[in-house]
Amino acid sequence: MSPNNKLTIGLFGYGVVGKGLYSVLHNTPTLTSTIKKICIKDISKKRDIDSSRFTTNAANLLQEDEINVIVEVIDDADAAFKIVKQALQNGKAVVSANKKMIAEHFEELLELQKKYNVPFLYEASCCASMPIIRNLEEYYDNDLLNSFRGIINGSTNYILSKMSTEKQDFKTALLNAQAAGFAESNPALDIEGYDAVNKLTILLAHSFGVVTKPSQILFTGIQNTSEVDTQYALEKELKIKLVGSIKKLQNGRLAAFVLPQFVNTNDDLFFVENEFNAAITESTFADKHFFKGKGAGAYPTASAVLSDIGALRYNYKYEYKKLYNNDAIELTNDYYLNVFISTNDISKIKKEEFEWIDAYQNTFSKCWLTGVIHAQKLITSNWWKQQGVSLILCEDAIVENVDYKKISKQSLALAGIT
Amino acid sequence: MSPNNKLTIGLFGYGVVGKGLYSVLHNTPTLTSTIKKICIKDISKKRDIDSSRFTTNAANLLQEDEINVIVEVIDDADAAFKIVKQALQNGKAVVSANKKMIAEHFEELLELQKKYNVPFLYEASCCASMPIIRNLEEYYDNDLLNSFRGIINGSTNYILSKMSTEKQDFKTALLNAQAAGFAESNPALDIEGYDAVNKLTILLAHSFGVVTKPSQILFTGIQNTSEVDTQYALEKELKIKLVGSIKKLQNGRLAAFVLPQFVNTNDDLFFVENEFNAAITESTFADKHFFKGKGAGAYPTASAVLSDIGALRYNYKYEYKKLYNNDAIELTNDYYLNVFISTNDISKIKKEEFEWIDAYQNTFSKCWLTGVIHAQKLITSNWWKQQGVSLILCEDAIVENVDYKKISKQSLALAGIT
Repeated sequence: MSPNNKLTIGLFGYGVVGKGLYSVLHNTPTLTSTIKKICIKDISKKRDIDSSRFTTNAANLLQEDEINVIVEVIDDADAAFKIVKQALQNGKAVVSANKKMIAEHFEELLELQKKYNVPFLYEASCCASMPIIRNLEEYYDNDLLNSFRGIINGSTNYILSKMSTEKQDFKTALLNAQAAGFAESNPALDIEGYDAVNKLTILLAHSFGVVTKPSQILFTGIQNTSEVDTQYALEKELKIKLVGSIKKLQNGRLAAFVLPQFVNTNDDLFFVENEFNAAITESTFADKHFFKGKGAGAYPTASAVLSDIGALRYNYKYEYKKLYNNDAIELTNDYYLNVFISTNDISKIKKEEFEWIDAYQNTFSKCWLTGVIHAQKLITSNWWKQQGVSLILCEDAIVENVDYKKISKQSLALAGIT
Repeated sequence: MSPNNKLTIGLFGYGVVGKGLYSVLHNTPTLTSTIKKICIKDISKKRDIDSSRFTTNAANLLQEDEINVIVEVIDDADAAFKIVKQALQNGKAVVSANKKMIAEHFEELLELQKKYNVPFLYEASCCASMPIIRNLEEYYDNDLLNSFRGIINGSTNYILSKMSTEKQDFKTALLNAQAAGFAESNPALDIEGYDAVNKLTILLAHSFGVVTKPSQILFTGIQNTSEVDTQYALEKELKIKLVGSIKKLQNGRLAAFVLPQFVNTNDDLFFVENEFNAAITESTFADKHFFKGKGAGAYPTASAVLSDIGALRYNYKYEYKKLYNNDAIELTNDYYLNVFISTNDISKIKKEEFEWIDAYQNTFSKCWLTGVIHAQKLITSNWWKQQGVSLILCEDAIVENVDYKKISKQSLALAGIT
């Protein structure tokens, strides 16, 4: 009942996460893990530990026999993939936090793990400190998972919180998020939903065993969220959250998307503020589980990396049980969504793409409508992503079966409004 | 990357949990697990499956070579311990949901696991469907855990919810809990806090590596919670919850107790209603994590048992890392608590046991006070548990260092009130 492995670590990256890791590992002797060498880009930078620890030559880590674990906490996704690939090929276990790299190369990374039979762990890539991958992998194994929903990007949640609770406009909220260290200096990755859809891609594999590319998933961010939207939310006692959703439909196939959504007080996501992330799983026997934790910041990320390092000492690796053991489950875009759309110019909305329109308002200061649209129509068009158009899912987002008999004459009449 | 073990199960108990398990296991062929034999008390009862599956002779399961896993979902803690002990001695893996049995025999069960080197899993014993033991064991491994707080009894939370949101009195709320299937026919185990303190004992081992007996822990239930209390909570926008707490104090030792507590809207536990359970962990790097899930009911319990069975297929066992790898950490009763006490008779309150009293009200309809008392004084006396006296922790429960200089003259004056 004691750890089996002594870990000798080669660390790529010595930013805030790398620094935190180094300090913890060297101050916790029970971990029996040491960082032997650290690979960085700029050797001339002044650092707080002995310079002999550092190298700019990746081979000094990747080719070093004594090093049995590579921990990679650099920003550059392309460089990260090269490091991870080489490390796995050389039989070294790898811990990474790079969601973009993992999401884009998921299939190759699976093959590498199979071929070289070494563990590759990446808990920090989704929801930072929260053990979400581990729980999806280990716990929702036999019990049939029906859905996953979550706030999986801390920066956008921080901005939406500031817009909602402190009535800040989008730009001010973004500047505050950057000042607080919760948004990149180039915030497009977070704001436009790329980060969240990368994470959802990884979560799809661990929750339902589906391997896909981020580009195949319906998504947007909060770049167009306006004061009309937050005002509408406020009036109806709703909040806007950027939500990643995976749902098993009645036909057995999966709907998956990352879109802003109105949530009400009956939804646990309503109470998730600032940089916190959250996940709701729904399964046949366990019913609903709700998890909440810090989804951004150096320490929460370091904590997940640390946990992966700890798990390696016990020979832990992802079994990808859903992927290898279960029947294949397919993604589909054949479902409908209940949406709210606001705009500064009604002509930007393609009303003919809707199945029907439920409500509509066009005054001097605000123009919005709510209606039902097929998911495929959103995937194959861009009008709803253009500047000045903001799409937000209604609380009850997915409509599986559209019964046209139920559409009132009024709805049809509204659809004709120009 | 495929499961290593084919499991052949001997099941003790065929109540709601046992039935659910049987049905799922036989309808999910990917599980490659089968229930070979079921041991029950009354063979004459009419059952929904072939009677040849059943036996009243425990030896038919425990001595059967083909059976490599014993799943025990019976009520009787003493009988359960005999079954589990014999099974482990015979080299069979065991899954149990019996918190009373596990809490009371923790040390013996540890020895049995060591001696016979077989896994003993019991996720269902704490918070039913929530993977709380697994997460404490696996995830909060290296990151330094500072505290655990949780709602770990579904029945009492259901009753408190009904008292708070529907203004039901205690008796009506209890009857409703029983009708909804969330309380035992003899509800004392839940209501008086025994169930919660059993769970806290188990959680102490997995969160901080401390092995103790339930009888060593400060606890009570909600048996004396009155309308004065719920009215006080309502006026101050608080809710009352029965909270299990473990906290590492500044002196490195642990405070642990199960007591009713006022929580405000800044506390995630505020939003946990009805039969739901919840847990909040706080650790140095990951910061706060919040988990919520169904803590009572047949299916949530079956789901956790199922998850343990799934884990056995991958040779999973608890490593008890905190217990075996870390420095010993000690429980202490040397700390103070901020408490609210209401009573129907002021003479029942031993005011002299308080360090000081902050506020005090004694009118025809209500009598209550708030003040600070040493934990050891609560452990060694029973006046605060007697009928007509209700103790509830304040939001900020633990006072580590009492600075007597700060006590105002008013407080000292109040302490003299009779």
